[in-house]
Amino acid sequence: MPLTPARTMPGVMELLPLDQIAFQRLLDTIRANFERFGFLPIETPVMEYADVLLTKQGGETERQVYFVQSTGALEQGGKPELALRFDLTVPLARYVAEHEHELAFPFRRYQIQRVYRGERAQRGRFREFYQCDIDVIGKDQLSVRYDAEMPAVIHSVFEELNIGPFTIWLNNRKLMRGFFEGLGIADAEQQALVLREVDKLDKRGADYVRDTLMGEGFGLSAEAVARILDFVQIRSRGHGDAIARLDALGRGSATFDAGVAELRQVLELVRAFGVPETHYAINLSIARGLDYYTGTVYETTLNEHPQIGSICSGGRYDNLAANYTKSHLPGVGISIGATRLFWQLREAGLLPAAQSTVKALVTQMDEANLPQYLDLAGQLRRAGIATEVVLEAGKLARQFKYADRAGIRFVLVLGPDELARGTVTVKDLRKQEQFEVARAELVKTLRVELEQAEAMPA
Amino acid sequence: MPLTPARTMPGVMELLPLDQIAFQRLLDTIRANFERFGFLPIETPVMEYADVLLTKQGGETERQVYFVQSTGALEQGGKPELALRFDLTVPLARYVAEHEHELAFPFRRYQIQRVYRGERAQRGRFREFYQCDIDVIGKDQLSVRYDAEMPAVIHSVFEELNIGPFTIWLNNRKLMRGFFEGLGIADAEQQALVLREVDKLDKRGADYVRDTLMGEGFGLSAEAVARILDFVQIRSRGHGDAIARLDALGRGSATFDAGVAELRQVLELVRAFGVPETHYAINLSIARGLDYYTGTVYETTLNEHPQIGSICSGGRYDNLAANYTKSHLPGVGISIGATRLFWQLREAGLLPAAQSTVKALVTQMDEANLPQYLDLAGQLRRAGIATEVVLEAGKLARQFKYADRAGIRFVLVLGPDELARGTVTVKDLRKQEQFEVARAELVKTLRVELEQAEAMPA
Repeated sequence: MPLTPARTMPGVMELLPLDQIAFQRLLDTIRANFERFGFLPIETPVMEYADVLLTKQGGETERQVYFVQSTGALEQGGKPELALRFDLTVPLARYVAEHEHELAFPFRRYQIQRVYRGERAQRGRFREFYQCDIDVIGKDQLSVRYDAEMPAVIHSVFEELNIGPFTIWLNNRKLMRGFFEGLGIADAEQQALVLREVDKLDKRGADYVRDTLMGEGFGLSAEAVARILDFVQIRSRGHGDAIARLDALGRGSATFDAGVAELRQVLELVRAFGVPETHYAINLSIARGLDYYTGTVYETTLNEHPQIGSICSGGRYDNLAANYTKSHLPGVGISIGATRLFWQLREAGLLPAAQSTVKALVTQMDEANLPQYLDLAGQLRRAGIATEVVLEAGKLARQFKYADRAGIRFVLVLGPDELARGTVTVKDLRKQEQFEVARAELVKTLRVELEQAEAMPA
Repeated sequence: MPLTPARTMPGVMELLPLDQIAFQRLLDTIRANFERFGFLPIETPVMEYADVLLTKQGGETERQVYFVQSTGALEQGGKPELALRFDLTVPLARYVAEHEHELAFPFRRYQIQRVYRGERAQRGRFREFYQCDIDVIGKDQLSVRYDAEMPAVIHSVFEELNIGPFTIWLNNRKLMRGFFEGLGIADAEQQALVLREVDKLDKRGADYVRDTLMGEGFGLSAEAVARILDFVQIRSRGHGDAIARLDALGRGSATFDAGVAELRQVLELVRAFGVPETHYAINLSIARGLDYYTGTVYETTLNEHPQIGSICSGGRYDNLAANYTKSHLPGVGISIGATRLFWQLREAGLLPAAQSTVKALVTQMDEANLPQYLDLAGQLRRAGIATEVVLEAGKLARQFKYADRAGIRFVLVLGPDELARGTVTVKDLRKQEQFEVARAELVKTLRVELEQAEAMPA
């Protein structure tokens, strides 16, 4: 029979084991921090009914959906009934609406699952990727205080990930909307178009943006454009500076004033949550999804790697599940695109060196002593030290080489001398040291070394 | 706009948060034990090319496949290029063939992901479910010793899951094939048909099976049928009994003798791996997938819940990836169907009472003291105790009720008295006790209680 070429579709991230371990550590750290802040896990099916998934979505999203059909449905023809989720927000809305009467509100959920988008194949674009989301959903109302909890979680996650200094940027959609209304740009779509031009500041420069906004399509006055360019370039450094810059904005419409007051309150509480003032700031250019967010919005960037863009974003929305329930469900949430983040960190050389989950390899010197090797491995495993035993006979040098390639740190040798003396010879491949230790002391010795390694920055 | 009914497709297991936590604990325990034995994680994309996925599959599997098409592909018509994986074995074969030169052999991988089958909707049947697999793949050869490692992992997993006594049943396909060949039933398909009748022993009784096998379709002699019925009813109790029963089988064909020798060797090593002899036994009726397994085969049953059937099965196969590579890749593996297992354990009342991942709730007595509440929560979170803070003002009684419903054990009160004294009042909802403790002692006190709770059987 001819061979089928073994291959995967483009746009997926399939990893070799050591990279998978590093990726798993990223997900585990995110999850541990979500749990630490009292978020509860949910998982939803990868497929939803197409009519549920696509209720409110516009063209772009719908064009990127993957549809699913069983063999039977395919044979019958007709439109597919099912589709793969393209984010975790629509499934959350469906979940909350479906289980509304079984949930306690405010409902604090985390969800770490893969989502699917039929993106054009391109380097760094993924068709299958993990999202790690938290949201707090209120019934009828949700205090703006929850908006301050999100930066606290973001801070906790990225501190522990230890990928360098980062800044959590905050803005407020009401403030932004009020500002544009004050300039006579009341229409949300028109605001979006202006912001899209403003986004080109870094790439095209101020002159280009100014010319465009004063040009035919927009027709804004020189003064209005100057005010816009001043406004969107506002960034704070430190807590006091953030408050001072908000104060300096002065008064405006009711919407504007409400936005300023909200942002001020959120900043004060972010500080009370213990986030260091070096790690949060206001940035009045941040807009996020204009049709979706209604209050606080967040982005997070690595100070030393701005080209990576936002690594964690989100915001406050008015009503989660208007398509599925008459209940009013305001919420606030953030999302980390873990697949893209991992890929980018690896590209930027920010990932620690690969370490196996396997910590010890018990070598095989003499197959007659296999029971002793297995016994030794059992002792280590019961102590929580992940251990592999060489079961296939082979040269000792090859066994050491295997451990080295596999990223296993400790190679254990139980030769006739060690068996006679009740000891084990340990070769530490990381430190390039070798020592002999009494069997009774082995677990303690390895644990001390492993705990030191975990405490050390990678 | 009319509402879209919020609903999921039948055949998926979507859980409320407390159940999701219990399910997550199941997956985490399985993963921890896989890692403890030195297996390395991989994840593969949920979609594979249809031609890769369906190379060797016969009718039944292919009829249950879910096909996937992007919007663009759907519009163009034609056969779908992609399909959802229906197990983790075919993706493993594709993965090993694709990355063969980047992997170290024997390749020890674990994989915990969801798979998809277009089953008919039926209680306890799932269209989306988790499989938790480990496999060891050799290049050219793989010692039968690896076959003995599988029961050691199974034992470790189910001991820790603490769901009651269980037995790991072993058989060997060569032994079985040799036995049937000795009776003149040399054809594999004919053997499978006989075994299918034998499977009806429990339901239909020995007389029915005997009549069928001696009847028109099979035409076996009374003596042959008697020997088959004796053979398939062989079960051992304890290690010595297992060896004795193998000895009592006597000699047969080369295949038969090889099977007996392998099974004996595996039993000896299972013991050397430290699996108690109460937990493994031979069972010569176990066949598993006849077209796939070639040596050792395993099933695992709960002693007190035989109706649940096998909760962990697998075996030895000759060549993993013959469809994708010319390399000869023998392997051995097991699989736990975690979704079905969880569902069955819950139905049988074997799951411990739901406990939240959130351990402490900091109540809000006076919103002016919110910074103190947040500070207290930060202290607990840094110590690894998952903590939620009530951010929405409300009556204290309602906050206690929320904690109770949410399964949160400790409710913390920081009233004016506690703040003055530098203490916290702790209500332990599990023990129904209340006590006051100094802030400096709080973390230590809660940790002691939480560690005791984890050590206790649920």
